[in-house]
Amino acid sequence: MTILGHTDKITVLLNWAANPYHAPLYLAQQLGYFADEGIKVAILEPSDPSDVTEIIGSGKVDLGCKAMIHTIAGAARGFPVTSIGTLLDEPFTGVVYLKSSGTITEDFHSLKGRKIGYVGEFGKVIIDNLTKRYGMTPEDYTAVRVGMNVSDAIIRGVIDAGVGLENIQQVELEEWSKAQGRTADDVGMLRIDELADLGCCCFCSILYIGNDKFIAENPEKVRAFMKAVKRATDFLLENPEKAYNQYVEIKPYLGSDLNRKMFQRSLPYFSKSLENVQRDWTKVVNFSKTLGVVDESFVQNMTNEFLDV
Amino acid sequence: MTILGHTDKITVLLNWAANPYHAPLYLAQQLGYFADEGIKVAILEPSDPSDVTEIIGSGKVDLGCKAMIHTIAGAARGFPVTSIGTLLDEPFTGVVYLKSSGTITEDFHSLKGRKIGYVGEFGKVIIDNLTKRYGMTPEDYTAVRVGMNVSDAIIRGVIDAGVGLENIQQVELEEWSKAQGRTADDVGMLRIDELADLGCCCFCSILYIGNDKFIAENPEKVRAFMKAVKRATDFLLENPEKAYNQYVEIKPYLGSDLNRKMFQRSLPYFSKSLENVQRDWTKVVNFSKTLGVVDESFVQNMTNEFLDV
Repeated sequence: MTILGHTDKITVLLNWAANPYHAPLYLAQQLGYFADEGIKVAILEPSDPSDVTEIIGSGKVDLGCKAMIHTIAGAARGFPVTSIGTLLDEPFTGVVYLKSSGTITEDFHSLKGRKIGYVGEFGKVIIDNLTKRYGMTPEDYTAVRVGMNVSDAIIRGVIDAGVGLENIQQVELEEWSKAQGRTADDVGMLRIDELADLGCCCFCSILYIGNDKFIAENPEKVRAFMKAVKRATDFLLENPEKAYNQYVEIKPYLGSDLNRKMFQRSLPYFSKSLENVQRDWTKVVNFSKTLGVVDESFVQNMTNEFLDV
Repeated sequence: MTILGHTDKITVLLNWAANPYHAPLYLAQQLGYFADEGIKVAILEPSDPSDVTEIIGSGKVDLGCKAMIHTIAGAARGFPVTSIGTLLDEPFTGVVYLKSSGTITEDFHSLKGRKIGYVGEFGKVIIDNLTKRYGMTPEDYTAVRVGMNVSDAIIRGVIDAGVGLENIQQVELEEWSKAQGRTADDVGMLRIDELADLGCCCFCSILYIGNDKFIAENPEKVRAFMKAVKRATDFLLENPEKAYNQYVEIKPYLGSDLNRKMFQRSLPYFSKSLENVQRDWTKVVNFSKTLGVVDESFVQNMTNEFLDV
């Protein structure tokens, strides 16, 4: 029986256009794991990653994925979201650049006078903070908002460097450099964890998140969702090639050599337990306080209560 | 001032992964036309086109795009959506196949015993209906649900033919055939409008749609949205190359030769006035009655009141 205008589909908004590390979500759908848990799921992709916490926090979408630091910042900005698990653990994140361009080196000061690309407003906050740490000011570089097109903007020369992940943007640039007759070694990364003395790239761990009201009202659905993506992750980690080929059946464009390389590079980052790691959260909340993004009273917006552990 | 958990972003769910004919929506965003009208918009992409009317009709997403016949079927299934304009006018739609495969011909009966791919449940309803018209039964062919991967499934041999658009799937197959050393002419299409004696491909016109409650509560936002996409469409039709290059800056993967060809083939289909065409609606509602999708009392769920005409 249909109730007018009612759907029992859970909406899930990805943090990024579907890419190789989103495999567990699509596999859980395709292999019937969501159905086995009695839930229906609609996976949606964003056009602008900066929309994600706002749209989930407002309750317009139920669940999703987002990096830890954005999950914290979203809640601090008045969009009530909570992390319910971890998809990718500490992917290396930093300012990626082409060594052959000759403009940027391993020295952070080489960014002075350069055009640096960032995804959304938050990348700029991080780079601005780093400039202070290195005796520079935010005026010492030109920030260019490039959304999901960091690698493309570097290749086109629109920016000199940009914020990216080791398993995504760095791979894109490496493959492009190789196609130009150079080597993968042409791509450099100024790691943000090292620059900021964080001791981990956990600020960029990609988390499963949910709208607080949705979570409070639908604890069993959230538990079912996490159970299904955990099962898909287990399958993927045991049979990476088979799992990826299955994913490619759903998303044919992810079957390219480039995307297969990104998947290989993403494999070590998949969280096995899907747990939020307390140590990481403490570090990243402290980092967020340093950035002025959250105040002293901030309460960590994460839970592991929906995981079977 | 932020109200806890409130967003003024209008969510817009596309009918398909972002493709060349979605240019007006992305251009309206990128060129600031939405901002000029005082609205904020988040464009979302579906993973399964079959989710769209259900998710918009339930109010989980505000606005979106969908083919006319799905818009009618969605409302008839209890998901209150209304069309507020037209994006693509009557793109040729049919069963696409490769002549060189030697299995399917211009004769509909050649589909007997074949595997035919369809996007969502509705494509199957249409083919099932056609089988009756041609003295066959739905059991005479094998229906394979392939979501957005019709061309890929044909190329991989998973299906013998599938439902697609002249400006999208047919172009994909043509370019693939050419890469195999054959010609574009290798791709055939059994046009559904001809098979079903419709006299137009309007059932597959891609419309702008909205959730009924959202429309009723936000008429000015809906008017602003349509004004911005109209302005973007005007710009695109006057400067197709410039407009497409601008779109590619937002979506670099749409810069491929294949996608540029799809854009060229989509150009004649863009609605200039963005109006819903009464004649088409009458035809398609009648067709929907024939299909048993709506009953005699069905009231056309479209309006042009949000267009400045």
